[in-house]
Amino acid sequence: MLVPAPRRTFAAMTKVYLKKKISRRVENGHPWIFGNEVGTVEGDSAGGSIVDVYTHDKKLLGRGYINLQSQIAVRLLTRDKAETIDDAFFYSRLKEAWTYRQKLGYTENCRLVFGEADYLPALIIDKFNDYFVLQTLALGMDRWKPAIVDALQRIFQPKGIYERNDVPVRELEGLPQQKGFLSAPFDTQIIIQENGLRLHVDLENGQKTGYFLDQHDNRRAIRHIVKDGDVLGAFCYTGSFETHAGFYGARSVLGLDISENAVAQARRNAELNGLGEVCRYEAVNAFDALKQWSKDGRQYDVVMLDPPAFTKSRETIQKAITGYKEINLRGMKLVKKGGFLVTSSCTNLVQPELFLETIHLAAKDARRRLRQVTFQAQASDHPIIDGWENTNYLKFLIVQVL
Amino acid sequence: MLVPAPRRTFAAMTKVYLKKKISRRVENGHPWIFGNEVGTVEGDSAGGSIVDVYTHDKKLLGRGYINLQSQIAVRLLTRDKAETIDDAFFYSRLKEAWTYRQKLGYTENCRLVFGEADYLPALIIDKFNDYFVLQTLALGMDRWKPAIVDALQRIFQPKGIYERNDVPVRELEGLPQQKGFLSAPFDTQIIIQENGLRLHVDLENGQKTGYFLDQHDNRRAIRHIVKDGDVLGAFCYTGSFETHAGFYGARSVLGLDISENAVAQARRNAELNGLGEVCRYEAVNAFDALKQWSKDGRQYDVVMLDPPAFTKSRETIQKAITGYKEINLRGMKLVKKGGFLVTSSCTNLVQPELFLETIHLAAKDARRRLRQVTFQAQASDHPIIDGWENTNYLKFLIVQVL
Repeated sequence: MLVPAPRRTFAAMTKVYLKKKISRRVENGHPWIFGNEVGTVEGDSAGGSIVDVYTHDKKLLGRGYINLQSQIAVRLLTRDKAETIDDAFFYSRLKEAWTYRQKLGYTENCRLVFGEADYLPALIIDKFNDYFVLQTLALGMDRWKPAIVDALQRIFQPKGIYERNDVPVRELEGLPQQKGFLSAPFDTQIIIQENGLRLHVDLENGQKTGYFLDQHDNRRAIRHIVKDGDVLGAFCYTGSFETHAGFYGARSVLGLDISENAVAQARRNAELNGLGEVCRYEAVNAFDALKQWSKDGRQYDVVMLDPPAFTKSRETIQKAITGYKEINLRGMKLVKKGGFLVTSSCTNLVQPELFLETIHLAAKDARRRLRQVTFQAQASDHPIIDGWENTNYLKFLIVQVL
Repeated sequence: MLVPAPRRTFAAMTKVYLKKKISRRVENGHPWIFGNEVGTVEGDSAGGSIVDVYTHDKKLLGRGYINLQSQIAVRLLTRDKAETIDDAFFYSRLKEAWTYRQKLGYTENCRLVFGEADYLPALIIDKFNDYFVLQTLALGMDRWKPAIVDALQRIFQPKGIYERNDVPVRELEGLPQQKGFLSAPFDTQIIIQENGLRLHVDLENGQKTGYFLDQHDNRRAIRHIVKDGDVLGAFCYTGSFETHAGFYGARSVLGLDISENAVAQARRNAELNGLGEVCRYEAVNAFDALKQWSKDGRQYDVVMLDPPAFTKSRETIQKAITGYKEINLRGMKLVKKGGFLVTSSCTNLVQPELFLETIHLAAKDARRRLRQVTFQAQASDHPIIDGWENTNYLKFLIVQVL
């Protein structure tokens, strides 16, 4: 059922001229233009307007949306001079995003739009079977929410669309934090299937969009090593890795998370998969537990660490690295000789090489030797564009600990 | 059935004292000691002898085998002072190597021993269901061939063991190039199963050990993108990627390799899987074909490049990089907008970051934008040890070409 969407067109009357000396980033294709790279603006510079961006010598670079209140003054939506930014543009980009995921074999769940990597800066859409969760993280994208919702309705005829714009980053754009229905209301407690398991997802109150789809393939990567083993999972959140471990035949699984709510949902996920006896959870501070238990000499066949981002700004990277090193050192000590450490980091501020280096420094301090089994990034519904650092963010490593 | 093996023990009477200034490599655990790091040798320094290695201030570092004829004077077998190098040592290391692969889910085929990464420098053993192919690439390891063969017999009761020591690198160790049976003779044309396909393997005349097991997982990584597409595979050798592409539902597959023999076997592999109509092959120079066909404007949904190592020495890295860049540039041009490039490099002299950089330079020259779908190394039966560069050698990349 294709319902023609109402057409909204914003003619890009505003012209933004860049300074002569700008970063090669822009020239190399990156869609962000920082405030200090903008020379002059001709026409309406109201936040969220569509603008044409020119080099200092008046060559058209591309078209995007402006917000001079934000550090990122313009985010380019296209470099194709013939492409107009209107409802049809968003419909077509969403179609392309879905075609790409389908080509990669995604059917039920996927990140449908991964912001910059889908040439839709600041837009995130996750598909959970017939439900969609959306985030518009910049003013210029937020404006197009009606067009985006229309496009989702036309392409998928979804059972529901929900907005999870309750994120602090929106304040940098002068946007309020908010969440709610973008379709008729529906029950936001849903069940998804992943790798043959069933999992509860709370679209309204879960972290971010409700579920971390980016670890989809990585969860499957533990299937052999956990078999018949005693598994410890720290920072387990709602137990997605732990439920997988139980499903793949672990003898016992213990998940730790500081949140009582997360642990309660982790228990429900275990029950849902008939793993209530195998997967147990404790609501404790995982940092403290790792520290104490490694001192106590506890030993596991597999230790899994999936901590939240320890930093969101460049200023605190060193502190974050110290944190990653500390938990990985403790984690390694908890692994039996010949067992496995499964460790992740989800901040783009710690790039893959630095992450590996941190793990190896931890091993040196822990006096353990490591053999790398697997090292990968997020699942391919979150594609990476070279040089666009925020698209290359998830590190997932399995090492044997000797 | 455990048959007690004859016991051979080499008491390490020889002592090697290192110079004061040696590389941190050795201190950090690397098993290689170069000739220029050796200070004095006390006792028998005949090539292949087992020696105890001490620091300049007489601390025991470990135990290994010596060959002063080789650039790598000593390769350490153990840093455990209590461990004796005898037949039981090799039996125990092979057992450990097999336990590790079993833990990772390997059953039929795997690289059973990956040299340094299994703490058995210069030893390669590939398991092809009931058959084993072995390479001893240094004099000190070659000496232990009887112990290694005994261990294989005791652990696996194999149908056959074959030696593929017909490799030039042995000459650096003063060893002859040779191949032949290390068990009762058997038919060296075997069939293996991989990812649900059946493939011919020629243990006697195939490249290296007969088959590249390292791409096992990577071959599976193409399963969605090739579906219904026209696929071109360059440097196809015996068509392992191409047969997979056919099996995963490609509309057409064309494989190119300069070797008539390789192409003949690729055709047999297609037939074996009922894909004789889908997978076609041409014995041509893939470099020339890529060049000409990209000029001709031919277009494919998926282009796969799996070239041989373009360099084996540090002196020719730059030339190798030029080669990788060239074929990838041509490859990208042959991909339809929105299609995929699947590209590998198997030399450790081009490390992952440099490989990615080369691909992105090629994209710039080809004026194509890339989105990274997957970037991974060799399969986990070839584990990687940080800082041991020769263990980190295979790069496998899938990008969408826009």
